[in-house]
Amino acid sequence: MTEPLKLGIAGLGTVGAGLLHLLEVHNARVADHLGRPVKVMAVSARTRQKDRGVSLAGVRWVDDPVKLATDPAIDLFVELIGGEDGVAKKAVEAALGAKKHVVTANKALLAKHGFELAKLAEKNGVALNFEAAVAGGIPVIKTMREALVGNQVKRVYGILNGTCNYILTKMQDEKRSFADVLKEAQAKGYAEADPTFDVGGFDTAHKLSLLAALAFNTKIAADQIHIEGIQSINQLDIEAANELGYRIKLLGVAQMTDSGIEQRVHPTLVPKDSAIAGVSGVTNAVAIDADFAGSLMLVGPGAGAKATASAVMSDIVDIAAGFVLHPFGVVTSKLKPFKRAKLGQHTGAYYLRLAAYDRPGVMAAITRRMAEREVSLESIVQRRPRGTTIGQMGSNGGQGLLANVVIVTHDTTEESIRKALDAIEADGKVAEKPQMIRIEQL
Amino acid sequence: MTEPLKLGIAGLGTVGAGLLHLLEVHNARVADHLGRPVKVMAVSARTRQKDRGVSLAGVRWVDDPVKLATDPAIDLFVELIGGEDGVAKKAVEAALGAKKHVVTANKALLAKHGFELAKLAEKNGVALNFEAAVAGGIPVIKTMREALVGNQVKRVYGILNGTCNYILTKMQDEKRSFADVLKEAQAKGYAEADPTFDVGGFDTAHKLSLLAALAFNTKIAADQIHIEGIQSINQLDIEAANELGYRIKLLGVAQMTDSGIEQRVHPTLVPKDSAIAGVSGVTNAVAIDADFAGSLMLVGPGAGAKATASAVMSDIVDIAAGFVLHPFGVVTSKLKPFKRAKLGQHTGAYYLRLAAYDRPGVMAAITRRMAEREVSLESIVQRRPRGTTIGQMGSNGGQGLLANVVIVTHDTTEESIRKALDAIEADGKVAEKPQMIRIEQL
Repeated sequence: MTEPLKLGIAGLGTVGAGLLHLLEVHNARVADHLGRPVKVMAVSARTRQKDRGVSLAGVRWVDDPVKLATDPAIDLFVELIGGEDGVAKKAVEAALGAKKHVVTANKALLAKHGFELAKLAEKNGVALNFEAAVAGGIPVIKTMREALVGNQVKRVYGILNGTCNYILTKMQDEKRSFADVLKEAQAKGYAEADPTFDVGGFDTAHKLSLLAALAFNTKIAADQIHIEGIQSINQLDIEAANELGYRIKLLGVAQMTDSGIEQRVHPTLVPKDSAIAGVSGVTNAVAIDADFAGSLMLVGPGAGAKATASAVMSDIVDIAAGFVLHPFGVVTSKLKPFKRAKLGQHTGAYYLRLAAYDRPGVMAAITRRMAEREVSLESIVQRRPRGTTIGQMGSNGGQGLLANVVIVTHDTTEESIRKALDAIEADGKVAEKPQMIRIEQL
Repeated sequence: MTEPLKLGIAGLGTVGAGLLHLLEVHNARVADHLGRPVKVMAVSARTRQKDRGVSLAGVRWVDDPVKLATDPAIDLFVELIGGEDGVAKKAVEAALGAKKHVVTANKALLAKHGFELAKLAEKNGVALNFEAAVAGGIPVIKTMREALVGNQVKRVYGILNGTCNYILTKMQDEKRSFADVLKEAQAKGYAEADPTFDVGGFDTAHKLSLLAALAFNTKIAADQIHIEGIQSINQLDIEAANELGYRIKLLGVAQMTDSGIEQRVHPTLVPKDSAIAGVSGVTNAVAIDADFAGSLMLVGPGAGAKATASAVMSDIVDIAAGFVLHPFGVVTSKLKPFKRAKLGQHTGAYYLRLAAYDRPGVMAAITRRMAEREVSLESIVQRRPRGTTIGQMGSNGGQGLLANVVIVTHDTTEESIRKALDAIEADGKVAEKPQMIRIEQL
């Protein structure tokens, strides 16, 4: 095993350049660990003329990434192009078909085609590694696929999108609005011009689908996820949560229940003194509840050239050492069909905020609707928000002052909550659609 | 690779029984992941007659663990006997010499003999895995040895002893004394009858020596560690730290500096809103600062039958999959000699608490001594502790009332602090040895 492991890298954006940089800096270290060097033979990217801050001397340039994928000079194809279809998919398929190992950071590709690609990798006896696809530099794929083999995972959840966590942290710390912080995040490059993919929860959902497949040995089911973004969170929620002893985080949660698997992405109240509440800014965290290992949490940078390159390198190193695993832990023929749990049967506590008309009988009507659905309340607080005028709270058609009613329920089902809220809305007691945020038991 | 991997297990205490339990529950799962089963062929323990809650049907009993270690029927020897020398060492040496892979949870053995044992493993082409030796179920060895190969680690630190963290958490939350909480911990089985090994920091030091060797690719230097326990921490410190925005944790810290490697175990002030401050009770945490991956933190149960069994199983699974690594990442001939940094040159901020005589000129004398050593102060607070009488604060020989002076310094060297405190003591301005707690930059 003293022959170098020969790489072809497609995509020289932030992560690709970061990987070349890492290989420049730590080549000797990697060779010391492996007993063999890792060598970049050829690369492919859209533009050849661009200063990436790394040397490409002695590295062959291949215009077509799909051609690079089957290049006889390489053992391993690193896909850093991105995109769920198109050239990334073609190139990965070509590489696997040509019996080249593949390392990719492409969560969208895997969320959509991971099962088929894993089958192809197995058929050709090569690796398909994707540590960098989830939570950047955090070794969560390695942990789930290797360290937890002797465990039944019951739940995996986490802060999987740095943009959302940055925005929520800033809203919390600086008492600023979602729109205001989003604008700043865009200026700093933490959020895209069209932020929907991040703030709408879709990026989190992609990653969650991969974690769930690893956790439960099921087929990837990225289209079976309940997704809510953070756009509806405002200062009233942040402040009320704070007073109740919580922080609001966008979590992706995959959980085994009696009726199937829940996959959900939504803003979540977590206790202020929990470890995950302390994960702030662009940092990511993944927590795993397993029957033997117990509750683990892994925290670290979820993105960035260096952290992502570190994760890609971790995958490369395993392959260089001859370690080829089934991409999703077990052979694809043993991946179980995904059985989705009905979200209506989700059991948990809820935070509710209602913009209620401040008139006699309103509280009685609200609490009666809750009682009808057997939702029992842990706390209920009514107050007129400080400095808020009617207009700011929503369109109430001049029907009087609005009060902010904040309710925390005991454990109940999502169906009960939804029906109670529907009835309250139908009663005409509230001026806007009620805010509902799930509270996660940690 | 459909032949079973055949185990011999020596030591059937909590962890050994936990491992047998795990293998009972998850045998099919493990076989699904590996494509081959894992089978216990023979065991050895002190007492044969004891209900361990697991079946030993079909498993051969071997009285002598050293004999079990070389048993022709086994591929892998699991050492769960414990102890830095004696039969555990003899058995592990025998197993490696007979070309059996070894998995051990024995931190004391590795801290003392890890280098020689790693050499023996290499010579015989077998694995020596020890995930369970550090931080129980947390996959920190895997993370450092595999996931971070493409990184230079700059610092590794953590809460590595659940007993200490339990005691400090209780002292914080319930405003109770060290002695009182220790007694409770002993009653609950979280602390030994002789608690010195835990509360004195020695257990943390063993684990730290292994982490440092992995982090810096140096020889294990368990005798080159500055060790302070938590016995001197009292409510005055806990409360003052709280008011200053800190929590007190017993950390093991290994850090690369310009003058060598610092290995230190001591109570540490960490910012209240840091993720590690939120790690409470018996939970462990390991944080790693690496040049590419960034700052990672892994949190989880540091002990217990199930969590430790999960870690042992992780090691077994890797071996079953044919993955044999150098025990400390690189071949032992490449492990560098350990160069110890002088603690006097340690740079950081310090918390100091002085029981000063409440007389004119005392504060001036204290601050002058600090100034002489160019220690600059971030804050200084003087007050008489609530409800404390002279006798409770120390023997002051009737020289007047005592004031509690709490100082937080800016970054300075340990040598400067020590000299300043020596001078203050020599001046006769304080009634007891000053309390000094390092503040760690996170």
